[in-house]
Amino acid sequence: MIYADNAATTKMSELAINTMVKVINETFGNPSSLYTIGQRAKEVLEKAREDVAQVIGANPREIIFTSGGSEADNQAIITAANIGKKKGKKHIISTAFEHHAVLHTLAKLEKEGFEITLLDVHENGIVTVEDVKNALREDTALVTIMYANNEIGTIQPISEIGKLCHEKGVLFHTDAVQAVGHIPVNVIDDNVDMLSASSHKFHGPKGVGFLYVKKGIPISNLIEGGAQERGKRAGTENVPGIAAMAAALKEAVSKLDETSASVKARRNRLIEGLKQIPHSAINGDEENRLPSNVNFCFEGIEGESLLLLLDDKGISASSGSACTSGSLDPSHVLLAIGRVHDVAHGSLRLSLGEDITDEQVDELIKSVKEVVEYLRSFSPIWRDLVAGKKEFIL
Amino acid sequence: MIYADNAATTKMSELAINTMVKVINETFGNPSSLYTIGQRAKEVLEKAREDVAQVIGANPREIIFTSGGSEADNQAIITAANIGKKKGKKHIISTAFEHHAVLHTLAKLEKEGFEITLLDVHENGIVTVEDVKNALREDTALVTIMYANNEIGTIQPISEIGKLCHEKGVLFHTDAVQAVGHIPVNVIDDNVDMLSASSHKFHGPKGVGFLYVKKGIPISNLIEGGAQERGKRAGTENVPGIAAMAAALKEAVSKLDETSASVKARRNRLIEGLKQIPHSAINGDEENRLPSNVNFCFEGIEGESLLLLLDDKGISASSGSACTSGSLDPSHVLLAIGRVHDVAHGSLRLSLGEDITDEQVDELIKSVKEVVEYLRSFSPIWRDLVAGKKEFIL
Repeated sequence: MIYADNAATTKMSELAINTMVKVINETFGNPSSLYTIGQRAKEVLEKAREDVAQVIGANPREIIFTSGGSEADNQAIITAANIGKKKGKKHIISTAFEHHAVLHTLAKLEKEGFEITLLDVHENGIVTVEDVKNALREDTALVTIMYANNEIGTIQPISEIGKLCHEKGVLFHTDAVQAVGHIPVNVIDDNVDMLSASSHKFHGPKGVGFLYVKKGIPISNLIEGGAQERGKRAGTENVPGIAAMAAALKEAVSKLDETSASVKARRNRLIEGLKQIPHSAINGDEENRLPSNVNFCFEGIEGESLLLLLDDKGISASSGSACTSGSLDPSHVLLAIGRVHDVAHGSLRLSLGEDITDEQVDELIKSVKEVVEYLRSFSPIWRDLVAGKKEFIL
Repeated sequence: MIYADNAATTKMSELAINTMVKVINETFGNPSSLYTIGQRAKEVLEKAREDVAQVIGANPREIIFTSGGSEADNQAIITAANIGKKKGKKHIISTAFEHHAVLHTLAKLEKEGFEITLLDVHENGIVTVEDVKNALREDTALVTIMYANNEIGTIQPISEIGKLCHEKGVLFHTDAVQAVGHIPVNVIDDNVDMLSASSHKFHGPKGVGFLYVKKGIPISNLIEGGAQERGKRAGTENVPGIAAMAAALKEAVSKLDETSASVKARRNRLIEGLKQIPHSAINGDEENRLPSNVNFCFEGIEGESLLLLLDDKGISASSGSACTSGSLDPSHVLLAIGRVHDVAHGSLRLSLGEDITDEQVDELIKSVKEVVEYLRSFSPIWRDLVAGKKEFIL
């Protein structure tokens, strides 16, 4: 059993589970209530807010707890759009390979009259500051660029883009769902105005996330109602989930140096191994990517069959984002880095856990090799490629 | 220790906690993933959907899991508003004492050009079908009326209102956050098109809820992104929370006949006891209210002081909604049933748990009596009332 889909979701840590159960049992009150049981829940909530803020270099008052990364992305973009509208600024810059929580929110705004520029992410899966600079206009209301891509793991030059945005007086949001808890993230150093994160990507519970919004930015509600989260996000706070998220985040960040180095070494071992498979290629920049992310294309095969056969061998992996796995279309991320349809269909994402071992990496390499060879043995596309009727791309 | 604020939030049941922890440990996969671990999570998710649907008489495909009641209310109303807009219908009927998740969403729509009619809820806290009938117009897009009020617990004639709406071809939504798990709710019998519910009100976890939307109604997204919940609610599903909610709901409903009768008997005992306090009055209809809800006004005192002194005696209670407890304004619900400011300020909501005992009820009565007498002993308003300088209202 090797779970190699940590970019889709992670297993909750023991600490996070224990924290959640403890809060459920001991501090179940509504934090908006005046009595002791409520105020104790309020304390747990505010302590979690302090912890989360501290990890990313923010002020606790700049943290809004949400139901996850998607909600945080939606709220950040709607916030910037509403601010822009008031100033007559209706242009937004993003990239072609954002998560759908960003792309679909932008599509909604496009219908409302916003103009969206989606930047090219090049073959290496990294947007350049120059690209952003060239796209900026007088009426640009927002630049929203993900911290690290969820499929190919490439890390974007967030700090430099943020610096540029601030020089031009443009709001900058980053979807940091794949980054927080995995690489160092600091809202000051990174020059971001808004940042989204999701708990279940760093061994916290599902259904919880947060949005950082720099002090002074007038936040728009996505969910209207009660006065929770200083009136900016209605609904009784999920105190046990929030406390567990904070515990998981602190835990992940406290051992980041150590896990990051060891996971990166295993990632590189895995990349080297998979490169030995003929007519394969890594997707996205080989070095400038998340320590845990490996993403390959194998010519002449179908990603879905690859996953199912790996599953038979006890390996959990994906072809790309779990959020779109029902779709028959190839990954928009792989198309964005220039993979043609046929090649993009033969993709495999392996996102490693912090406890991955060399032995497991070797098992992954062996299994992927076997399955790719097996699938190619009866693939009509592969037959045509070998027979020279089609040209190899990879 | 008597926790008498179950309308604000409930303690999770043992079954719900165990279900959640079991799913966290055994089925942590992303339900959108193709491999076994993911598909197992998908099964848990769909089983929960079946269970929830079954309880309220719906089809599983009519259930959308949300982060709670507020999100569900927002999504229901936005859905109806978008449908209305397309038909040129921009009138919505609701009541003056809805939860803020409804009222604030309606206020947002009002800014966008919708016309909102808020019906009177009369002295007994119950809207009449006649009122709804008189308010209906050719351009009415939606009637949204809560199932049971969150502060005074009065139960609305949902089925009759729904029948009327259907005769007129108008969509009908009910915020059933206080009703589901506490009184029988059935979407067919109740003639509702959309219904919102919240897990933590029936001993399930916080941060989870659901929205029922009758088949055929085109749902608008509140949160855009991945294809979860048939594309209608983005974000990785909180499978452990959803499974725990379903378990809690089934558990609550399975013993509803029994708990409902016993809680109602204790509620009546409590009402009789509190009536003995001079210049007090029950808020809302005495009989047609949630089995667990008691809400009184006591003339000449401040509700907040009452709560703090009850807290000192180990009793957790509230003056009204927890969601607005930061506010200095008196409850909009009490104003809606015609209480004047001074009287509304002296309110107390006691919402009983299913395990409440006669002894605890007697302790509640004794404590409230003592605290009211104590507060009145140095209240300048009370002095004026007793001296005849002001007239008693209650």
